[in-house]
Amino acid sequence: MKKVIAADAAELKIIPLGGLEQIGMNITAFEYGDSIFVLDCGLGFPEDDMLGIDLVIPDTSYLTDNIEKVKGFIITHGHEDHIGALPYVLKQINAPVYATRLTMGIIERKLEEHGLDKIVTRKVVKFGQTITLGDFHVEFIKTNHSIVDAAALAIYTPQGIIVHTGDFKVDYTPIYGDAIDLQRFGELGKKGVLALMCDSTNAERPGFTQSEKTVGTTLYNIFEEHKDTRIIVATFASNVDRVQQIINTAYRFERKVAIEGRSMVNIIETAIELGCLNVPADTLIDVDMLKNYPDEKTVIITTGSQGERLAALSRMAGGTHRKVMIGPKDTVIFSSHPIPGNEKAVTKIINELFQKGADVIFQDTHVSGHACQEEIKLIYSLTQPKFAIPVHGEYKHLKAQAKLAEQLGIEKENIFILSSGDVLRFKSGEAKKDGKVPCGSILVDGLGVGDVGNVVLRDRQKLSEDGILVVVLALDGYSNQVVAGPDIVTRGFVYVKESDEMLEEARTVVDEAVFQCQSKGISDWGKIKNTIKDSLGEYVWKKTKRRPMILPVIMEV
Amino acid sequence: MKKVIAADAAELKIIPLGGLEQIGMNITAFEYGDSIFVLDCGLGFPEDDMLGIDLVIPDTSYLTDNIEKVKGFIITHGHEDHIGALPYVLKQINAPVYATRLTMGIIERKLEEHGLDKIVTRKVVKFGQTITLGDFHVEFIKTNHSIVDAAALAIYTPQGIIVHTGDFKVDYTPIYGDAIDLQRFGELGKKGVLALMCDSTNAERPGFTQSEKTVGTTLYNIFEEHKDTRIIVATFASNVDRVQQIINTAYRFERKVAIEGRSMVNIIETAIELGCLNVPADTLIDVDMLKNYPDEKTVIITTGSQGERLAALSRMAGGTHRKVMIGPKDTVIFSSHPIPGNEKAVTKIINELFQKGADVIFQDTHVSGHACQEEIKLIYSLTQPKFAIPVHGEYKHLKAQAKLAEQLGIEKENIFILSSGDVLRFKSGEAKKDGKVPCGSILVDGLGVGDVGNVVLRDRQKLSEDGILVVVLALDGYSNQVVAGPDIVTRGFVYVKESDEMLEEARTVVDEAVFQCQSKGISDWGKIKNTIKDSLGEYVWKKTKRRPMILPVIMEV
Repeated sequence: MKKVIAADAAELKIIPLGGLEQIGMNITAFEYGDSIFVLDCGLGFPEDDMLGIDLVIPDTSYLTDNIEKVKGFIITHGHEDHIGALPYVLKQINAPVYATRLTMGIIERKLEEHGLDKIVTRKVVKFGQTITLGDFHVEFIKTNHSIVDAAALAIYTPQGIIVHTGDFKVDYTPIYGDAIDLQRFGELGKKGVLALMCDSTNAERPGFTQSEKTVGTTLYNIFEEHKDTRIIVATFASNVDRVQQIINTAYRFERKVAIEGRSMVNIIETAIELGCLNVPADTLIDVDMLKNYPDEKTVIITTGSQGERLAALSRMAGGTHRKVMIGPKDTVIFSSHPIPGNEKAVTKIINELFQKGADVIFQDTHVSGHACQEEIKLIYSLTQPKFAIPVHGEYKHLKAQAKLAEQLGIEKENIFILSSGDVLRFKSGEAKKDGKVPCGSILVDGLGVGDVGNVVLRDRQKLSEDGILVVVLALDGYSNQVVAGPDIVTRGFVYVKESDEMLEEARTVVDEAVFQCQSKGISDWGKIKNTIKDSLGEYVWKKTKRRPMILPVIMEV
Repeated sequence: MKKVIAADAAELKIIPLGGLEQIGMNITAFEYGDSIFVLDCGLGFPEDDMLGIDLVIPDTSYLTDNIEKVKGFIITHGHEDHIGALPYVLKQINAPVYATRLTMGIIERKLEEHGLDKIVTRKVVKFGQTITLGDFHVEFIKTNHSIVDAAALAIYTPQGIIVHTGDFKVDYTPIYGDAIDLQRFGELGKKGVLALMCDSTNAERPGFTQSEKTVGTTLYNIFEEHKDTRIIVATFASNVDRVQQIINTAYRFERKVAIEGRSMVNIIETAIELGCLNVPADTLIDVDMLKNYPDEKTVIITTGSQGERLAALSRMAGGTHRKVMIGPKDTVIFSSHPIPGNEKAVTKIINELFQKGADVIFQDTHVSGHACQEEIKLIYSLTQPKFAIPVHGEYKHLKAQAKLAEQLGIEKENIFILSSGDVLRFKSGEAKKDGKVPCGSILVDGLGVGDVGNVVLRDRQKLSEDGILVVVLALDGYSNQVVAGPDIVTRGFVYVKESDEMLEEARTVVDEAVFQCQSKGISDWGKIKNTIKDSLGEYVWKKTKRRPMILPVIMEV
């Protein structure tokens, strides 16, 4: 037994607890001996069949089981799929959080909301700086992404160097700060990189992702062509560089800028505080002040570019926004691309805006924040890793990167497509996938964390399709005689007022079912309920070809 | 009064009852004096918020109100969004149906299913043929589309000629039959076309839609590159030309072909019967026979290219198909493009197929069936209409075609973007939009047509999000004293076994609410129920931040 532990201690283990074979919920544990650190701690967005669920967080029981080992959390950048689960996980495992400046700024707002800001230790890390977490040393490397201050990591372990790109792209002409530190990737490659964990999101796309700066040129042209209308730009709240470019363009055209949407106001405030966003004096105005300026002298930057039902843009398009009315004197720019699954919601808003007479522009005003194939190849070529571990993406994306890695000469058996929960072990320059730790999704619904599972979801699914029939009857506790009912109440099944006759017949069906039980001497309530369910279910199916939930309730009087 | 009718009689009215500002549910009434004919009669697919709904059909009360005028239904082609509502509408309005050969073949299968085949008069129409419907004469013109035998219509009315393209593209090298009859569009233009009603689906896309034949070349190359695997091709059931090309390619590579998926088997049988599909002898085999041939000598053509949960491909990918197991010796081709809203479902299947080791090809093996901008311009230029009425598409598509029409010199005030229910009136070469007729969507759920409306859908929505709490109590009919209960039963709310304590407290909350009512002397059950709803709702919200449906049931004993 002792021997196993000793052998184990010399291994480096990489254990993704989420984020593989899915978009979002990025979290990976790195373990060596008595040290564990956690890279990112993101939330996932509920799948279509997770009815009523607000968000999804990773199962971190592996970390709580090894809580004494956990030295800290390292966060690569400030997107929800990398930071969103932090407040939930920190409540279980209070370890220090390390991140760059803007990333930490966004995290701090989140911790405040959850009342954790006084409890959790935080350290802002600069690019180039290395922090020590037990047996690990982790260096932050500048990259580019659709949010400022994104970092890649060089993870120095006794088994070798692991490079993790985080979400990244190569932008030679970024808006704020420096271009990605390609030299450092090269230096690390010269030293010898054991494994590269590289962003796969755009691994299916050939070529290079365009520079954020190209969007500025497009925006300029659109502003030039729409000098007579108000301009509304919808984009991602966290894309500070995009907001900077919109503000710059507005300033050039002497327009005032109003920000709309809570999440955008929050991030912009944080970015201004931290100096990541430079706003010329007298440019920002409150939405309430818009009415004091002519339309053609204003710009509104708003959330809702993904068609989110409750976001500001959706309310403007639907005519329910209290301060902004859309009309023919509006040009609406979608500076975004619909995330898969949001296409229909976005299209709905575009149609509504057109119907209100606005001009809508939804092409060529967005670039991705993720590396395409040529950029991925560049990072592989600079780092020359022995092992490749594609990360961030669905299976098809991981597979596409694996193909690229193979083309670049990485041995097929040295490429690992991991699943969440897999344990990848490195020892003496060898790697093997061996073992599983608990992992999975914990559903958050309102205040409840994990109290909604498959049973509840299955019920919601059934309820959503055909509604419910509640059958209530009161039985005499001694004789099992019906003393009241059966009453049938339905919701979400049929329009009751027009279905009197059917519901009357349904009552007869229940009566007969109960009578049947009695004549057979069945007094077990469970059996009586099942008989009611079966008879009524069959009757309803015959009449409607629907399968509502049938819920018999028997009261004892 | 008489005068109005006389004036009215000389007007031509075009009344879309569906299909505008939406995809699907195409149906338009043409009315002149005592004659009405109906162009297409399609179904719509339920929106995301129409929980549990199977399909949507148009409200045709305007037609039933004028049933004596209705001379017949003219159907342009055999897609569901043009024929799917026929069985429902024909049950109300039994008028003759006119369509081309394959279109009628598909309609007949549908009528058989609904027991209408003996009752409804049908007439198969050839291209070039003109049929008379009261004051109207309607000529069928050959076009191309993603289904064989698609027709445009020249509608001769006392007010002039209306040209309706149906769904169309221009394919100079079609697979089956002739290219679109552009000459006839030209001839009609020379005669003088009053109005053009043209397909807008692809009006946002520049250029020309590629010929169906280009897909054949791509398929050949893929077959050439995958000589060692089984090939599975997923495509639209009704795309007979696509199936023809897959069969041709399979035959060239000496592979047997099995067809999987009921809707595809149906349409292929019909197409073979009618001679629209030519299958070389000994090429088609039953799916059960696949095991008798080596993998690399077989092709499966299957439904499910849109990620439909119950279709054959989805079952194969999920490992629940009884006859086809996916593995590394499979190449799966998506010969299709995801329809907006289906992206995530399609991606899910692609990931599952990759995970099972299959090679998946989902690019460049599909062309659209709809005209792009250059084709639309061509039809405008040939027909030179006075009025333009963009049809088939969401508002943004109609708007895009309107822009094209304007560019081609049609007067802005002669371009009409209609909404469903609008009445467009033509008289003496003038047109005006004037008046509204009833229109809308009727929801079909199982056997029920129209018995699910907003109230039921709202309940389903609420149930799907947070489930239901049923509160049952029995009151003495005389004294209003509680004789049994309150019992609380929940479904879709929380995992009950772990929420004992909360549900126990909830019971106390109900007890108190009832006691409150009694102490205030409230004996009205409606009021008691509302008090229970409010108190319990508030308690549950405080505890969980959820708003389940609360359904109090009071029994009288």
